[in-house]
Amino acid sequence: MKMGDAGKTVRLGILGLGNRGFEQTKLLSSMPDVRIQAVYDPCPDRVERMVRALSDRVSYPTAPAGGEDELLSREDIDAVVIMTDWESHIRLAIRAMEMGKHAGLEVGGACSVQECWDLVRTAQRTGMGCMLLENCCYNREEMALLNMVRDGLFGEIVHCQGGYEHDLRDEIGFGDKNRHYRQHHFAARNGELYPTHELGPIGLYLDLNGKNRMLSLVSMASKAVGLSQWLKEHRGDRPDLQAHRFTEGDVVTTMIRCARGETILLTHDCTLPRPYSRGGRIQGTKAIWMEDNRSIYVDGVTAHQAQDFSHSWESDAPYMDRYESGLWKQYREFGLRGGHGGMDYLVLRGFIEAIQQGTPMPIDVYYTAALMAITPLSEQSIACGSLPVAIPDFTEGKWLTGRPQAVGPYRLTQ
Amino acid sequence: MKMGDAGKTVRLGILGLGNRGFEQTKLLSSMPDVRIQAVYDPCPDRVERMVRALSDRVSYPTAPAGGEDELLSREDIDAVVIMTDWESHIRLAIRAMEMGKHAGLEVGGACSVQECWDLVRTAQRTGMGCMLLENCCYNREEMALLNMVRDGLFGEIVHCQGGYEHDLRDEIGFGDKNRHYRQHHFAARNGELYPTHELGPIGLYLDLNGKNRMLSLVSMASKAVGLSQWLKEHRGDRPDLQAHRFTEGDVVTTMIRCARGETILLTHDCTLPRPYSRGGRIQGTKAIWMEDNRSIYVDGVTAHQAQDFSHSWESDAPYMDRYESGLWKQYREFGLRGGHGGMDYLVLRGFIEAIQQGTPMPIDVYYTAALMAITPLSEQSIACGSLPVAIPDFTEGKWLTGRPQAVGPYRLTQ
Repeated sequence: MKMGDAGKTVRLGILGLGNRGFEQTKLLSSMPDVRIQAVYDPCPDRVERMVRALSDRVSYPTAPAGGEDELLSREDIDAVVIMTDWESHIRLAIRAMEMGKHAGLEVGGACSVQECWDLVRTAQRTGMGCMLLENCCYNREEMALLNMVRDGLFGEIVHCQGGYEHDLRDEIGFGDKNRHYRQHHFAARNGELYPTHELGPIGLYLDLNGKNRMLSLVSMASKAVGLSQWLKEHRGDRPDLQAHRFTEGDVVTTMIRCARGETILLTHDCTLPRPYSRGGRIQGTKAIWMEDNRSIYVDGVTAHQAQDFSHSWESDAPYMDRYESGLWKQYREFGLRGGHGGMDYLVLRGFIEAIQQGTPMPIDVYYTAALMAITPLSEQSIACGSLPVAIPDFTEGKWLTGRPQAVGPYRLTQ
Repeated sequence: MKMGDAGKTVRLGILGLGNRGFEQTKLLSSMPDVRIQAVYDPCPDRVERMVRALSDRVSYPTAPAGGEDELLSREDIDAVVIMTDWESHIRLAIRAMEMGKHAGLEVGGACSVQECWDLVRTAQRTGMGCMLLENCCYNREEMALLNMVRDGLFGEIVHCQGGYEHDLRDEIGFGDKNRHYRQHHFAARNGELYPTHELGPIGLYLDLNGKNRMLSLVSMASKAVGLSQWLKEHRGDRPDLQAHRFTEGDVVTTMIRCARGETILLTHDCTLPRPYSRGGRIQGTKAIWMEDNRSIYVDGVTAHQAQDFSHSWESDAPYMDRYESGLWKQYREFGLRGGHGGMDYLVLRGFIEAIQQGTPMPIDVYYTAALMAITPLSEQSIACGSLPVAIPDFTEGKWLTGRPQAVGPYRLTQ
């Protein structure tokens, strides 16, 4: 990446100006080689706030009166960043590509497997880039772990775990279903709603769509009582919310089996009290890493302690330093910026620079579709009593002989 | 429990004198109200070692030349402790009850669901006690956690996890299949081979067979490469072992759904490098506990830290002290003894004292069958591509109105 070096200016349209859209747009507008041409959100107050926040910028964005379609049909836009509600990400990305724009999608699961296929077909037909803006693929720890995997530290990888374990009762409980992207999903769906933060990096460790792919999954949901109990205690003002029967299980567990025999375990856990975790775990024939105690154990390397059970953990911090990606070394010198510890900036740069250089998206449409499809597939499995469900091969066999697009997010570590 | 106070002498026969049988028999023989009448193992050297080790005891055991059957038919034996290979536990327990002896079974999964039914039917028909000697139900931490659950610290329980995460490559790899109980299971089975250490306590938290039961499970197995790779490096002397294609997946994950909507996640992980863990987790509407970082988070109680994600863990140690069971307080005063931090002694006392008092076994035959059946059920699920499998209700509806036997392991905490 070129970091601060301005390349060819990329002209952006922005769809969705909630809190996430607001912050990411400000961050994008701070890049010298990015121009925000137009912004849109159905809520006028959000548009106004955004335009006001950017009013000191050289490139002052406009807010198209005609909404999404007017924005997408503009000639002076190269690409669109979509930060709307989950259920419109794919629809808008398809529409953007059809209008000749590259599409960057904020994270979130799909609503149907078919729309994932439509996304792939549209990218294939139009030749436009489509990238899931999965920031966790660019996090310092996840990128260091990818280096450890590639360096063979773990030996042959056998099993990975990850989760989105984040107490969101406050956010969902005080959200307004007309303006908040999560609440109505928890109200009426039951599945792995948010798999990409953990599965994005895990897929890199397992070389998914490289020389591997996900074959099938099974999901199981616990009862849904966390949010209801929270609402009873905190939303006396909203008897309608208190009376609502939320459907999303408090803990949804998903097991995935891969073509090369690895298993992946995902946990979605957002409506019970808990500290935040992405619940990472990597297990191979030579080592295990676990996020929840920030530890690693390397066979024959980690010192044994004279205890009943003779193995003990060591801190993962020295490994994170030793295996730090070149990108992060560069980035720390350049100066971290943006949200979530700096990874938000990197994922946006990945998108912008692929457009500038005319290279494939670092997280391509096949990978995007594979990650997003987990959500509707997990709903199907749960709806059928935890039946195993086949996971489509969106590359249609191209994974067998290498990456369907030449690069993949892998170049990030070079 | 009466601890050191000798009650009516219980006269025991012992089947199985491997390392476990040897240690547990020595421990039993140290109890003033227990007399080891006879011991048996098909390996003569083990019998000899055992008899030698007990030769200074008041009650010198004999080794019946006629084997199991001769031992089981003796009139001077009240009960049998079965510590043979996994696949003979149930067969021998059934035979013991038929011969009018109470049966204590060392842990391990069943080989078929039918033999679990046979175990239940035999206990019902003969009126003899049958107890899985699940020591972890008697561990200090697990018993304290049960008190926390009952005290409402966790609110409504939603999800539990546990595992048998124990690097046994050494033990299995150097074992001899004719004398070691694990190796041939890993060689030819694929399932949750050893669920009871974690599921025993979890079942108490969830009141299984009390007012709840397990409805269905799904299992998934990773590839099996850990043991083979280890053998290649460590058993150059055994080309037959090196060439063998082991079937037990390195990581086997099982999801269980309960009648009241809770989910349980089990992990069997014995052939990859890792520190030991039983991977415990309890999640409710008010708190979460996690073994791997020895921490707890209680909603509104655990102090928040000013971080990006505003919740943080606190050590579980003060909670383990505050909620320590009365039994453990007594036990510490009495003086811990026996293996595995003291719990081995307690589980044996649970068995002995139920016989002395003529009360139901603290871990009864219904609970024993439910735990042991998980193994063949998980094999079925994996064999059918992770199909969901129904879990039998061995109580045949008695759980709906309370415990099928009056007591259950619950009295231990009183």
